[in-house]
Amino acid sequence: MLGLMQQWPLLNHKILDHAATQHPNREIVSRMVEGPIARQTYAEANLRARKVAQLLEREGFCAGDRIATLAWNTGRHLEAWYGIMGIGAVYHTLNPRLSPEQIAWIMNDAEDCAIFVDLTFVPLLEEIAAQVPTLRKVVVLTDRQNLPPSTLTNLVAYEEWLSEADGDFVWKALDENAACGMCYTSGTTGNPKGVVYSHRSNVLHALIASLPDSMALSALDVVLPIVPMFHANAWGIAQSAPMTGATLVMPGGKMDGASVYDLLDTEKVTFSAAVPTVWMMLLQHLEGTGKMLPHLKRVVIGGAACPRAMMEKFSRVYDVEVIHGWGMTEMSPVGTYCKLKPETAGLTGDALFDLRQKQGFTPFGVEMKVTDDENKALPWDGKTFGRLKVRGPAVAASYFGGVGQENFDAEDWFDTGDVAHIDKNGYMAITDRAKDVIKSGGEWISTIELENLLIGHPDVAEAAAIGVYHPKWDERPLLIVVPKHGKSPKKEDLITFMEDKIPKWWLPDDLVFVDEIPHTATGKIQKTTLRDQFKDYRLPTA
Amino acid sequence: MLGLMQQWPLLNHKILDHAATQHPNREIVSRMVEGPIARQTYAEANLRARKVAQLLEREGFCAGDRIATLAWNTGRHLEAWYGIMGIGAVYHTLNPRLSPEQIAWIMNDAEDCAIFVDLTFVPLLEEIAAQVPTLRKVVVLTDRQNLPPSTLTNLVAYEEWLSEADGDFVWKALDENAACGMCYTSGTTGNPKGVVYSHRSNVLHALIASLPDSMALSALDVVLPIVPMFHANAWGIAQSAPMTGATLVMPGGKMDGASVYDLLDTEKVTFSAAVPTVWMMLLQHLEGTGKMLPHLKRVVIGGAACPRAMMEKFSRVYDVEVIHGWGMTEMSPVGTYCKLKPETAGLTGDALFDLRQKQGFTPFGVEMKVTDDENKALPWDGKTFGRLKVRGPAVAASYFGGVGQENFDAEDWFDTGDVAHIDKNGYMAITDRAKDVIKSGGEWISTIELENLLIGHPDVAEAAAIGVYHPKWDERPLLIVVPKHGKSPKKEDLITFMEDKIPKWWLPDDLVFVDEIPHTATGKIQKTTLRDQFKDYRLPTA
Repeated sequence: MLGLMQQWPLLNHKILDHAATQHPNREIVSRMVEGPIARQTYAEANLRARKVAQLLEREGFCAGDRIATLAWNTGRHLEAWYGIMGIGAVYHTLNPRLSPEQIAWIMNDAEDCAIFVDLTFVPLLEEIAAQVPTLRKVVVLTDRQNLPPSTLTNLVAYEEWLSEADGDFVWKALDENAACGMCYTSGTTGNPKGVVYSHRSNVLHALIASLPDSMALSALDVVLPIVPMFHANAWGIAQSAPMTGATLVMPGGKMDGASVYDLLDTEKVTFSAAVPTVWMMLLQHLEGTGKMLPHLKRVVIGGAACPRAMMEKFSRVYDVEVIHGWGMTEMSPVGTYCKLKPETAGLTGDALFDLRQKQGFTPFGVEMKVTDDENKALPWDGKTFGRLKVRGPAVAASYFGGVGQENFDAEDWFDTGDVAHIDKNGYMAITDRAKDVIKSGGEWISTIELENLLIGHPDVAEAAAIGVYHPKWDERPLLIVVPKHGKSPKKEDLITFMEDKIPKWWLPDDLVFVDEIPHTATGKIQKTTLRDQFKDYRLPTA
Repeated sequence: MLGLMQQWPLLNHKILDHAATQHPNREIVSRMVEGPIARQTYAEANLRARKVAQLLEREGFCAGDRIATLAWNTGRHLEAWYGIMGIGAVYHTLNPRLSPEQIAWIMNDAEDCAIFVDLTFVPLLEEIAAQVPTLRKVVVLTDRQNLPPSTLTNLVAYEEWLSEADGDFVWKALDENAACGMCYTSGTTGNPKGVVYSHRSNVLHALIASLPDSMALSALDVVLPIVPMFHANAWGIAQSAPMTGATLVMPGGKMDGASVYDLLDTEKVTFSAAVPTVWMMLLQHLEGTGKMLPHLKRVVIGGAACPRAMMEKFSRVYDVEVIHGWGMTEMSPVGTYCKLKPETAGLTGDALFDLRQKQGFTPFGVEMKVTDDENKALPWDGKTFGRLKVRGPAVAASYFGGVGQENFDAEDWFDTGDVAHIDKNGYMAITDRAKDVIKSGGEWISTIELENLLIGHPDVAEAAAIGVYHPKWDERPLLIVVPKHGKSPKKEDLITFMEDKIPKWWLPDDLVFVDEIPHTATGKIQKTTLRDQFKDYRLPTA
């Protein structure tokens, strides 16, 4: 017996239609790549997205076509997304921080047939376009006046192009399981792998990400997604904000402290989301200028673990709630948010920050477990760590082209590649990446805990822990340390500093000082490079 | 091209599993029908719901079977719902306020094959069971000691029955479009019509109803659903509370002011939902005792228009945010909530209460429009009223047995039978029921506005407006008034009171005083009865 409820497929364009109907005059404020601040409403964005759809269809693009975007967060980028999805095509966000070779590889793997590109990235695209034979249209997200001379063919200025359409376009009726978006994971090993979102997964994700214990978005919020749309869908904000009628403030390409502060202040932003590096720049700007954050209420910090000192500063100095979040490109990306529960709401001082350092608990729609290497579920005791696996309607079931099948099991559990423990209250804490964890005599040592600990030392700027060969224990920890400018910490002092804070057998067998640690395009420590660099390192204990 | 995301069907039991996994120790507190307060956790409720499922399956019940419940809001009722849904069967809530004949008719229409019944309603069931030949199992929601002698056969005490199972039951893998629940609309004309919810519609509804601009439920909330589960799914709380990990406080059968206050206070309830009548009793109790509401933060009031004086009292005396809600059994039931937007957030005093008197705006997932009788969409100008029509994934597409098809059009718009206008900010206000609206010379007069206006007079307890025959205007308004106890208002004074507050041609042509106005089982004024009673009434103007 079936229910007798309406067939109302979950489609992205319904989100923008809802915004245009219920919140027509709410603004999308953009710091344009050209410089000035631009303002438009959801009603206008809806019309312009329809123009994009109308033009794409007119030019022969159709359902299933992959259409790339290489752009910062702006209203134009957002319109392009919805326009692409509205004909059943697939937006494919490219990360400009990847190397030109990687971008070309990804575009060829996805067989992108058109691209929306910011002025900033036209030179980059000129470098690679010839290597992407499927590419037959380039739309530069600017107007005619700002269009630079270019070696690219089939190039058009977005605003000029849009003027050829009237927006009288009916969104395509689509299967909610149709593909709508693509994003490649920036793997540290092997080729990048494509994640293919569906309309259904995007809409469900937007609902889940807007709940009170997620981002808690309402029509009264003013949301600044600093996390780029090419970084795991701007963590869902490009859908959640129009879904809830929140005002959107798009930072364009400027993420320095002064520019971010300027938007926070001028636009009275209440909620923002970014990686720790961005917040570090903001906090430095605030400290340098003595400015405060009277409007900002809460920030989600993810992409990398948020340093405790940063959380404390936000909370104690600026009265901003810091919500640790965790997710992955494969998860659309939401996995957990570190919000309070009755069991933890009474915590204060250090105990509260201990909790906030965890990645948090799952909303409805995300299932998680930690397992050992034999896939046996481990207890939720806050200390037993294992492989973190997840399941849900916005979690990938496979990668584009069928690669990487080893990450998915028969019951649909996706192995995140993270190592974590979960406490009795359901709070998960990442302790490592599975490929980074140090296996010493069969026992696991968390490299992240070692690194976080050492970063707490006043003379240390950055630290990376890797396992290196040991004849007795298979692997033992080596710590690679970048001292703070002008400081020369002693090896022994750093070991002493760590001594009483971790199990004795976790203490590194050696420590080396370097000027710089290599990073990936998304700002993570490139452990493969380090392991390569130190593969013949002989520990003093060996 | 399809997305490559997980197939993760939206099923109700995943809600209870999420609660049991992420919020295992959060409580469901119930005022039992037997009297005492009972406490259980979501983990316990999940186990007991699995026992219900295990036993139903063991006894031969299967997917698609309709299983009735005739019960107050308690933890047991909730477990029964999830247990029923967990084998793919269909919970069918019966409204005990209907007449025995109506209940028997509904049970036969649905072909209920089992029933979970509260002690309170055993006598009622004894009266009708013989008329329902499909009924083969009666579970009384109590324990062995409290089981009364009964004429019913196949009767068992719930707790004794549960003790026969161990709960080792795997929820059935189901199509998310499978039926999971049923509720009949209590029409004032014709036979009741069955609405059949699907797993998908329930889960989407729970997400939508939990959003910040809906009920805004979080794990820190303590939620008291006074609105019964048999009244349009307790407005979604039976799903939204476990979905978000909110503590549930179930009031059983006691909705008097003292009992409700007792739970609000003892359990530190932060959020509640009920019809105006219940709140009236609570406010009277508070005024009589001088008690306050330090824990309660917000209440949703729906089912009938909330008197303005009630809203003001909640806000000004008790610092409780009153959220007007509107919905229908056919809508699962959520339609709108009257929350603030940037356009209205600055309102204060009377202007704020003017706004709050409206039914509010739609969340994502509910589409609405007002049309004239020719289905032409009317402007959102805050005054042009017409038929209110809705669409969405939790809106009915048809009724059980295919009756009432005239309420649905080819584009899936459901005609709510309400008459409303929508303002430029998207706020909808119900002005009448379509069948009640007075058509005077082709123009519509809102009976609800006339009634609300007159209720504001200090001597009036209740008022009902109906249209009666007029030779020139077809219909003209007649007001039927119940004076407050001990008061004898004059007809002319009441007309004068109304004069400058509505268009002159809306003023009633006459007014009659009565001792009582008839009501439906859900507390609405029985206008059909009144129209029948006054069908030969001769207006002085005729």
